Amino acid sequence: MSQTGVRAAQRMATRERIVSAAIDVLRSNGVAATSTLEVQKAAGVSRGALLHHFPTRKDLVRALIDELVRRNEAVVDTALATAAGDDQVGRAVHALWAAAQAESALLEMDLWHAARSDDELRTALIDAERAAGRDLTRVVARAFGVEYAGNPRLPLVTSMTLALIRGLSTGQVLRTSTKAANQAIDQWVSLAHELLNPTAKGSS
Amino acid sequence: MSQTGVRAAQRMATRERIVSAAIDVLRSNGVAATSTLEVQKAAGVSRGALLHHFPTRKDLVRALIDELVRRNEAVVDTALATAAGDDQVGRAVHALWAAAQAESALLEMDLWHAARSDDELRTALIDAERAAGRDLTRVVARAFGVEYAGNPRLPLVTSMTLALIRGLSTGQVLRTSTKAANQAIDQWVSLAHELLNPTAKGSS
Repeated sequence: MSQTGVRAAQRMATRERIVSAAIDVLRSNGVAATSTLEVQKAAGVSRGALLHHFPTRKDLVRALIDELVRRNEAVVDTALATAAGDDQVGRAVHALWAAAQAESALLEMDLWHAARSDDELRTALIDAERAAGRDLTRVVARAFGVEYAGNPRLPLVTSMTLALIRGLSTGQVLRTSTKAANQAIDQWVSLAHELLNPTAKGSS
Repeated sequence: MSQTGVRAAQRMATRERIVSAAIDVLRSNGVAATSTLEVQKAAGVSRGALLHHFPTRKDLVRALIDELVRRNEAVVDTALATAAGDDQVGRAVHALWAAAQAESALLEMDLWHAARSDDELRTALIDAERAAGRDLTRVVARAFGVEYAGNPRLPLVTSMTLALIRGLSTGQVLRTSTKAANQAIDQWVSLAHELLNPTAKGSS
């Protein structure tokens, strides 16, 4: 590797270390306490190095969100690859529900929630989620598979699935069991089936 | 009023003042910063008076949740009374959605969310919401009206409606418009109709 290449690789490694540290701090301290100073300490880098990569807290928050979104997408892909059953709608919804329980998804929800009373965070989130929204639509479309690509009701089923999963996830904090939520998911799978395959039921 | 009666009324008024102050502090400072000291200052009462009514932070949090739940129920009732349209399912879902945008509902969601990383808060919430869950089921059943009382699919529609509304509410923080959410609500109304009145569609 050339000296320039080595320096670029070192810069990238430092940047990744800072973003990973930011996620650790977010997990341990919560959003409000995720300051550039705390992240700098956790990453073990100099103030100069931190400010070189992230001149403002907003830059850091933006990178943190991008990383969470990237991890979320990876979790959905893994969940899809391991989801059981032959039914593609069931596999897709169950994989999305499983992915919503992953830490990266829960931390992202923490950010959304904190954004209600934090304008800087909200601005960063809106920017990051605009790009992520397109990715998510792509991931969900892939989850439902070729069979439903172009199905006119797929956008409805997609947005309902995501809203339902977010709502169940929020309620889950008060539950000691996932039974009720799993039941709701199963019922939604069967409804989503009817929506995507109207003839399968109505015309019989 | 007897002297005992006067003292009881004064005690009740002080208690209400403290709970109202706790909600003000929660709104301004967030959950983590809602301490008994801040609430005491905001209510303008002595430490002794605060501790007399609420010996621990948990007692105060519990009273705060009960008050939010009470306000929520009042908001749902008002929304139901003013919801437009002849269709009872649409009126019920729209009223619940409108009520979910009210400050008391948003503050309650703040608490649910904070409970993920606050064991004391979670315990208080689980206790309070157990009672509130029964109230909510009653309120929602009333919202759907006598026509659907005893409908075997009402429990499914109720839990789906609440999860969907919570999920849409969570996503709403990133939106500048309520258009997409309102559209999802309208689509859910039409689905809920099909679920509650299966013969209206399938047999025609």
